[in-house]
Amino acid sequence: MALNEFELIRRYFRFSEPVIGSGDLGVGDDCALLAVPAGEQLAVSTDTLVSGVHFPADAPPDLLAKRALRVNLSDLAAMGAEPLGFQLALTLPEVDTTWLAAFSAALGEDALLFQCPLLGGDTTRGGLALTLTVLGRVPRNGALLRSRAQAGDLIYVTGTLGDSAAGLYCLETGQDNDYLLNRYWQPSPRLDAGKALRGLASAALDISDGLLQDVSHIASASGLSAVIDRQAVPLSGAIRAIAAPEQGYSWALSGGDDYELCFTLPPEQSAAMEQRLAAIGVRVSAIGRMIPYTGTRVQCLDEQGAVVTVETPGYDHFRC
Amino acid sequence: MALNEFELIRRYFRFSEPVIGSGDLGVGDDCALLAVPAGEQLAVSTDTLVSGVHFPADAPPDLLAKRALRVNLSDLAAMGAEPLGFQLALTLPEVDTTWLAAFSAALGEDALLFQCPLLGGDTTRGGLALTLTVLGRVPRNGALLRSRAQAGDLIYVTGTLGDSAAGLYCLETGQDNDYLLNRYWQPSPRLDAGKALRGLASAALDISDGLLQDVSHIASASGLSAVIDRQAVPLSGAIRAIAAPEQGYSWALSGGDDYELCFTLPPEQSAAMEQRLAAIGVRVSAIGRMIPYTGTRVQCLDEQGAVVTVETPGYDHFRC
Repeated sequence: MALNEFELIRRYFRFSEPVIGSGDLGVGDDCALLAVPAGEQLAVSTDTLVSGVHFPADAPPDLLAKRALRVNLSDLAAMGAEPLGFQLALTLPEVDTTWLAAFSAALGEDALLFQCPLLGGDTTRGGLALTLTVLGRVPRNGALLRSRAQAGDLIYVTGTLGDSAAGLYCLETGQDNDYLLNRYWQPSPRLDAGKALRGLASAALDISDGLLQDVSHIASASGLSAVIDRQAVPLSGAIRAIAAPEQGYSWALSGGDDYELCFTLPPEQSAAMEQRLAAIGVRVSAIGRMIPYTGTRVQCLDEQGAVVTVETPGYDHFRC
Repeated sequence: MALNEFELIRRYFRFSEPVIGSGDLGVGDDCALLAVPAGEQLAVSTDTLVSGVHFPADAPPDLLAKRALRVNLSDLAAMGAEPLGFQLALTLPEVDTTWLAAFSAALGEDALLFQCPLLGGDTTRGGLALTLTVLGRVPRNGALLRSRAQAGDLIYVTGTLGDSAAGLYCLETGQDNDYLLNRYWQPSPRLDAGKALRGLASAALDISDGLLQDVSHIASASGLSAVIDRQAVPLSGAIRAIAAPEQGYSWALSGGDDYELCFTLPPEQSAAMEQRLAAIGVRVSAIGRMIPYTGTRVQCLDEQGAVVTVETPGYDHFRC
């Protein structure tokens, strides 16, 4: 079917026009225009998802659309930022109007749900890939950085870990498990939690590469080491139902794509933080502590205090 | 060579740190952070370049890097915006350190030249492709839109047209022609001209898809028609030296990738505009006028006033 780039954009990618603020400008000019409120900073993050690398080539377009936006929103959550909008660069092997209609409808739903309008982007021909750039706002000097953890801080995570890796395992082995598959396809960006942690957490990030690898980023950026107590790492009932604890912990420690937040804070802030997160219905678990640098960025200890060796330290998008 | 994503970013993509403003944050956290001055709006644009579609698969990495950034900066120029920084999503089939070193050095040079620091991005494995998202600043209500042209406005272009298409022709036919090849590989984003046109031009865009197609975007967004006088379209001496006028005009009218600005303005503003652009050394040519909608968005007339039929009306990234 002949459908040129302009028609394609007009037909499938103007769903956000009603959401865009007055004075702002979305799809259709050389640039989108956006106001950033006074006293706030812009937060920007970009993620690329490549077919066959980051998702199966036959991924359902609606799930793919939601996953792509949510994965990017998770980076805003990790900074304590709120969404302003996003850019979409979509590379397609062909114009498949059924695929595009499903993709666009799902993307529009989530753009509305997260109040994150599509501002603009580019459509090109090539192997299926998506690059999203999300823009957010955060009070000046209020962003949650990776580099501000202090020795003595506790390490927390939101939600449960390993579900996404377990979901991918279910997908690859053809197991029907709605909860885990949903955790893989439709992670919940922890935007409310990130916002609630402003002024309390000393450092934060989202868990995209696996807990141990991501904690090592906080440790490294803050010039410290981290100790994780394996038995404190929260596993879902769904994982416990399908796998032995060893497998569950392996998914939780080194599986990527959980998109929960990992953050540090001084022990004296714990009560205030737990109260705030309980108020928005987000579960948190203390899983370890930051210590002065020992020569190793992250150590994980088991129930007996023995060091756990993890074979695959997180997902590396690029080892060749 | 084993080089993981984090080492790759550390080694090749931290060149902009010295350029980033104080209080801002570049590569290395979940998001980059950026201040947008009070009274200004953020301008955002995204472009993807796919190997084999938008550039030859064996494109020299330094030229590719510069072209990718300049093509994106041209969108800021078209809005009258100034660069704040950019995000880079780089998809690579393998880690080739020679390629990366050349790409990164050239990108760093242009980031400095255009004062547009690399803020962050993503590196992934897959077919070679680049998606850049540039961020810029423009005074609130000062951006040059496509939609504000008026009947009676003159149509102008900066520089000369068709050089990039002629350069691509030279590339594909193995002709050595430094000037034209350079116009293809290293277009000059007209940032100074865009800024100078604020408050004068009624509408503007950059010529990326071919003059006639791009003019039709202004006509369509403004609810008007446009008439182009072919003999007024500026051709370079380099084109006249290698091609008959018919071929030259064909490149100028429908060749893409010139990245000159096309803009409209009321005739009474012409003198002021010409003076401003002369002061910054930018050539401009009046090539036509906007008229009430006739049923056809763009008509191109030859020396005798006869309608010129153009076979390929501009580059379409997506006809399948």
